[in-house]
Amino acid sequence: MKKFNVAMIGAGFMGKAHSLSYAGMPMFFWPAPGIPYRKTVVDVTEELAKEAAQRFGYENYTANWRDVIEDPSIDIVDIVTPNDSHAEIAIAAAKAGKHIICEKPLARNAEEAKKMWDAVREAGVKHMVAFNYRRTPAVALAKKYIEEGRIGKILNFRGTYLQDWSADPNSPLSWRFQKKVAGSGALGDIGTHVIDFARYLVGEISEVMAITKTWVPERPIQTGGVDKLGTVKGQADTPKGIVDVDDEFSTLLKFENGAVGSIEATRNAWGRNNFLTFEIHGEKGSLYFNYERRDELQVCFADDPSDSKGFRTVYTGPAHPYGEGLWPIPALGIGYGETKIIEIYDFLKSIVEDTEVSPNFYDGYRIAVICDAILESAEKGMWISLNETSLSVN
Amino acid sequence: MKKFNVAMIGAGFMGKAHSLSYAGMPMFFWPAPGIPYRKTVVDVTEELAKEAAQRFGYENYTANWRDVIEDPSIDIVDIVTPNDSHAEIAIAAAKAGKHIICEKPLARNAEEAKKMWDAVREAGVKHMVAFNYRRTPAVALAKKYIEEGRIGKILNFRGTYLQDWSADPNSPLSWRFQKKVAGSGALGDIGTHVIDFARYLVGEISEVMAITKTWVPERPIQTGGVDKLGTVKGQADTPKGIVDVDDEFSTLLKFENGAVGSIEATRNAWGRNNFLTFEIHGEKGSLYFNYERRDELQVCFADDPSDSKGFRTVYTGPAHPYGEGLWPIPALGIGYGETKIIEIYDFLKSIVEDTEVSPNFYDGYRIAVICDAILESAEKGMWISLNETSLSVN
Amino acid sequence: MKKFNVAMIGAGFMGKAHSLSYAGMPMFFWPAPGIPYRKTVVDVTEELAKEAAQRFGYENYTANWRDVIEDPSIDIVDIVTPNDSHAEIAIAAAKAGKHIICEKPLARNAEEAKKMWDAVREAGVKHMVAFNYRRTPAVALAKKYIEEGRIGKILNFRGTYLQDWSADPNSPLSWRFQKKVAGSGALGDIGTHVIDFARYLVGEISEVMAITKTWVPERPIQTGGVDKLGTVKGQADTPKGIVDVDDEFSTLLKFENGAVGSIEATRNAWGRNNFLTFEIHGEKGSLYFNYERRDELQVCFADDPSDSKGFRTVYTGPAHPYGEGLWPIPALGIGYGETKIIEIYDFLKSIVEDTEVSPNFYDGYRIAVICDAILESAEKGMWISLNETSLSVN
Amino acid sequence: MKKFNVAMIGAGFMGKAHSLSYAGMPMFFWPAPGIPYRKTVVDVTEELAKEAAQRFGYENYTANWRDVIEDPSIDIVDIVTPNDSHAEIAIAAAKAGKHIICEKPLARNAEEAKKMWDAVREAGVKHMVAFNYRRTPAVALAKKYIEEGRIGKILNFRGTYLQDWSADPNSPLSWRFQKKVAGSGALGDIGTHVIDFARYLVGEISEVMAITKTWVPERPIQTGGVDKLGTVKGQADTPKGIVDVDDEFSTLLKFENGAVGSIEATRNAWGRNNFLTFEIHGEKGSLYFNYERRDELQVCFADDPSDSKGFRTVYTGPAHPYGEGLWPIPALGIGYGETKIIEIYDFLKSIVEDTEVSPNFYDGYRIAVICDAILESAEKGMWISLNETSLSVN
Repeated sequence: MKKFNVAMIGAGFMGKAHSLSYAGMPMFFWPAPGIPYRKTVVDVTEELAKEAAQRFGYENYTANWRDVIEDPSIDIVDIVTPNDSHAEIAIAAAKAGKHIICEKPLARNAEEAKKMWDAVREAGVKHMVAFNYRRTPAVALAKKYIEEGRIGKILNFRGTYLQDWSADPNSPLSWRFQKKVAGSGALGDIGTHVIDFARYLVGEISEVMAITKTWVPERPIQTGGVDKLGTVKGQADTPKGIVDVDDEFSTLLKFENGAVGSIEATRNAWGRNNFLTFEIHGEKGSLYFNYERRDELQVCFADDPSDSKGFRTVYTGPAHPYGEGLWPIPALGIGYGETKIIEIYDFLKSIVEDTEVSPNFYDGYRIAVICDAILESAEKGMWISLNETSLSVN
Repeated sequence: MKKFNVAMIGAGFMGKAHSLSYAGMPMFFWPAPGIPYRKTVVDVTEELAKEAAQRFGYENYTANWRDVIEDPSIDIVDIVTPNDSHAEIAIAAAKAGKHIICEKPLARNAEEAKKMWDAVREAGVKHMVAFNYRRTPAVALAKKYIEEGRIGKILNFRGTYLQDWSADPNSPLSWRFQKKVAGSGALGDIGTHVIDFARYLVGEISEVMAITKTWVPERPIQTGGVDKLGTVKGQADTPKGIVDVDDEFSTLLKFENGAVGSIEATRNAWGRNNFLTFEIHGEKGSLYFNYERRDELQVCFADDPSDSKGFRTVYTGPAHPYGEGLWPIPALGIGYGETKIIEIYDFLKSIVEDTEVSPNFYDGYRIAVICDAILESAEKGMWISLNETSLSVN
Repeated sequence: MKKFNVAMIGAGFMGKAHSLSYAGMPMFFWPAPGIPYRKTVVDVTEELAKEAAQRFGYENYTANWRDVIEDPSIDIVDIVTPNDSHAEIAIAAAKAGKHIICEKPLARNAEEAKKMWDAVREAGVKHMVAFNYRRTPAVALAKKYIEEGRIGKILNFRGTYLQDWSADPNSPLSWRFQKKVAGSGALGDIGTHVIDFARYLVGEISEVMAITKTWVPERPIQTGGVDKLGTVKGQADTPKGIVDVDDEFSTLLKFENGAVGSIEATRNAWGRNNFLTFEIHGEKGSLYFNYERRDELQVCFADDPSDSKGFRTVYTGPAHPYGEGLWPIPALGIGYGETKIIEIYDFLKSIVEDTEVSPNFYDGYRIAVICDAILESAEKGMWISLNETSLSVN
Repeated sequence: MKKFNVAMIGAGFMGKAHSLSYAGMPMFFWPAPGIPYRKTVVDVTEELAKEAAQRFGYENYTANWRDVIEDPSIDIVDIVTPNDSHAEIAIAAAKAGKHIICEKPLARNAEEAKKMWDAVREAGVKHMVAFNYRRTPAVALAKKYIEEGRIGKILNFRGTYLQDWSADPNSPLSWRFQKKVAGSGALGDIGTHVIDFARYLVGEISEVMAITKTWVPERPIQTGGVDKLGTVKGQADTPKGIVDVDDEFSTLLKFENGAVGSIEATRNAWGRNNFLTFEIHGEKGSLYFNYERRDELQVCFADDPSDSKGFRTVYTGPAHPYGEGLWPIPALGIGYGETKIIEIYDFLKSIVEDTEVSPNFYDGYRIAVICDAILESAEKGMWISLNETSLSVN
């Protein structure tokens, strides 16, 4: 069983999640496609990097991400930094022949994302963008039903991603509210997960029509480098800075296959936590998923007997995708960690078996094109056709 | 206690609902503002009208609706016919000085609706359009919270109305699928209820941007005059006719007060029955309602303590709007009947107290303007501003 | 279509519900088995009776219930008085040859109930006890599944009835808290509905083992005769009286067919409104019902494919029991009123067709035997076998 | 930061869960109370143990559990074997001065459990029994509310644990169905978790009254040592063996503080997966928890305003117990893994800080006493008082 040396660049909340997945993956999926070894962790200072190594179980640490690019023993580079550094790191890693897993969104915009996609293609390395939510077993089960034709031709997709961690206007101005770092707001941060669902489950999007809103125009400036996801609040007298990204967007969609849809994402929905949902209507049935109750997929089959038709709550477990590797009884329960463990499993498998994994940098790039189109549509107040804006792929 | 002689024109499913409300209203709301007396029922033939009188408890019957217009003893005309006859009947009733309650949508389009609104204004009669769902106690409670400022300034409204009774392509071509009778499809039939919610709870809509879809382009021609709401299916060899209205629409909204929103309605959502929902995000809280669980309103208050914040499921009962008149314990349960009983109560109160009731023909007309704009937007692929299309009111 | 003259004795909340059902039944179930005519209403004073006649639509009124027993034109006597008068009225009505519908519980104890059951048998009249909840379409659907063998042999029944209308210790001492009027507390008032479910769905109970609790030993004495179901509170200085019935009981059950079970009922469950539930486990499936979401039946079939097994939420409508008579689309919604309308429909049908209706006075008597046994078990701390305590029936 | 060498005895599904918690705990709770080091894993054969070491990340392995007892470098012994070996291993480990964490139930019966409790007390080591579900943040939040008096004096506790993994009669006869290995059936395996909840949240139980049932009297004999939790089925021609434990039990409870309650657990509830619930009614509020939706606690406060009272769905996150260490946003989601990570965190903290952790072997012993009493009550058909059966503790 081959060992893969991993270098993780970034050590915030997402670094925690990824480290857990490296440790836990072989425990779940056995025989594992390979054994990930936590070799080196990178953080912004030596002190932070040293602490991260101890906390997350890495052998080495450094404050200079180029160290791991140059280290020939590193097989996999894992990028869990803010969005503005994804491109530079990924392109360097690709040139150095590393396999790359990169947090979402792939980049701040389509132009950056295209360069990353070009780089990995050219280098011939494996690449993945970490839209982990599609690896929730219930979402993979929805995909299975659709592929088996069990809900028929898809007519409509409705997706939402609603949160409230920054609904409070005193929630600090982290990098997630700054266009130069994040690229966009709710769109890139959470909306991209829903766009990933739409492409994964329904197909390629052809046109978008959108509104965006920035409900909180300025926020207390954050001190310290940590990504404070709403758990810390600024004081009344904290100086404020400008929010130059969207807090919310809402979009109508047309798909290439004739389906229609809509997506809404906001961080100003009091009481919603990680309300990542989709509802899909097909000619032969319907599906509903809500990550807040992520073990469950709701499905209605049109051809059930009329006296016993209705949404079934399918509680995912051993009989469902990834189920044999996870827990032996449904409802022991899938958390965020498990989605990341599955992600790493599929990524290592793609390396070992030399296959493409999805979503990869091409998907990340396509999603960036859609994001750019959504922002353009909101600005111009008109439908934007993606076929005209996106670059061809071969 | 004044007795009001009612003439009901139409005797289908909606005639049943309205008749129950005339019989039941004083039982619930006592002392009643007046006692409705079921005087005359009108149906398309003498035989049907005679049977309707016996079934629904009317003293008289006729097959000619003009009889009741000309009958000076009639105080209230209740129009529960298909949409294409609303205008002619209502205008005649107004001229004859009758108070009018008319089923929704008020008319097939804004032009017709405007004439009806003009007629009742001119005649000085009381008028109401039967968007009964806003009288569900849980919806009225949402209105109360909003008016009291308990969820703050509204940012976003999302409404849906999902059904599946005609998702089967062999569901018959009733009048609801014919533009010349219905005016529009899912839009007028069910979407208007959501538009009514949006205006009631958030405020006037300023712009719309929409998609429409007709998923089932032809259906088995229906025989017989009854409005078969999906309970009867055509045979494979039944001749088919063209559906020239929408099965589904999806729209983005801008409100005059700066809020944004979206509405989706479809009759092709397998497993959804009367999935009439709204979710509203305000600066201080959120609301969620689903008619399929119509006794309940979900509300989250932002200023609840952080360790006990979350959506409350408020089960409506005696402590909520209309509650004292209804049932003495929450969850004895509100059905469709109760929404209609409340509707008649408010209508009679407006007559007795000589006040305006809402939604009235003006609201019905405004909603018709919005419907026309949605269809225009879907056709042209562009935002339609309502201030430019709608006629002024004073 | 035969007309049936109804005399209703009692005019409180239950009188409202029954009057609505007389008015509404033929509107729903057409052709109706008969037309109930609201002939005479009885209340405790002339004034109250007169007002009740106007409010509930009765032709006559009286303050003396014996008037209607002696009135040869009366076909049906409907008893909606407090429990302590059921026996006297019902026995007199039976002797006078009236058909009788009596509110639940049938009587304060088994001895009284036995006399009532003897009286109606002897008189040969039709008799029904108003356990209306089993006529909720979703409950009738559960019965249908069970009879069709779709969940197999039943192993376990768990029922609850949780309310909070008297959880506040200042909720007044209505007759429902007085043993001499009510017979028992939560047991007779709400627990009997669950016992009715258990017998209806599973079969005869053979043994019980119970605990009872009186959480609020004294309450403010109520002034006025109205049945104040928690909507009015006493003042701090209101004199208090003793509560000599149970606020809560919990019982283990053994059924004659080998199934086991439990029932719990309480009026001290803050946040529960009309939380009347059952869960049934069979060898081939499971059922779950909650009256708070009364349109829905949850069912899991063991033989569904492993990748799509789970509880189905069957939303009752035209395809389910009583559905054709009710509303043409699921989720227009069943309220308390509809359960009572169905009840009257089945009762009139039994009169016209000369068949037995269930639950009747025999069922009411058997339930009273079970209640007595539950109280005896709680007092003695031991299992009580019903076969030893109950009288034989033939 | 002190390193603790762990020896894990057993390497089945529970070994996976515990290993993940050793790896992940410091990633979540930082600074960690100590760093657990996966030193040695024990399984039944050398081959299995070797594979377990590789899979779960242990430095050494052995097929003889006495090796790790004798190894002076081992600080913590983790017992995740079937129930019949808990006592022997734990007593040996205690004598060797090891801290011990033992899977639940602590032993097959109270007598065994008492010896274990005596051994750890005598040895002065730290001890914990792995009732991990009480460490679900939503359950810990319920405890916090209760301790703060927010639901007042507790009146009633109702707990259930419903599963269906062995509802199929061809589910194999694993050790969990054999009295000599397991001690009892659903009672010890899952019912003990509910008993742990009852004691944790309400207080000590004083009397029990129970029924037990074995619905499937014989099952296909399992080949191989793995604990097949329902994922594998026997063939029709597989020889069968006797099930001599309960598939289901149902019990009434009395608590020392005057509260009453009931517990039901079964493995024959089709459609229920890990339906571990409690509902608690207090004088000032109610609580509801269901592990199938484990991120959520439902709470109703009696003193909320009457127009906005109802169950709140509190979605656990950073503002709730253990929240700061877990995930930065509610609904990223707690899975089974997180409950085990918290468990290890609290255990190591108790070692480092030399405090008692709960539930410990005393709790495990008390629960065993209750289990014995439940079985005795079911056999004798009478209430069993725990104060008479249990041994005194000091």
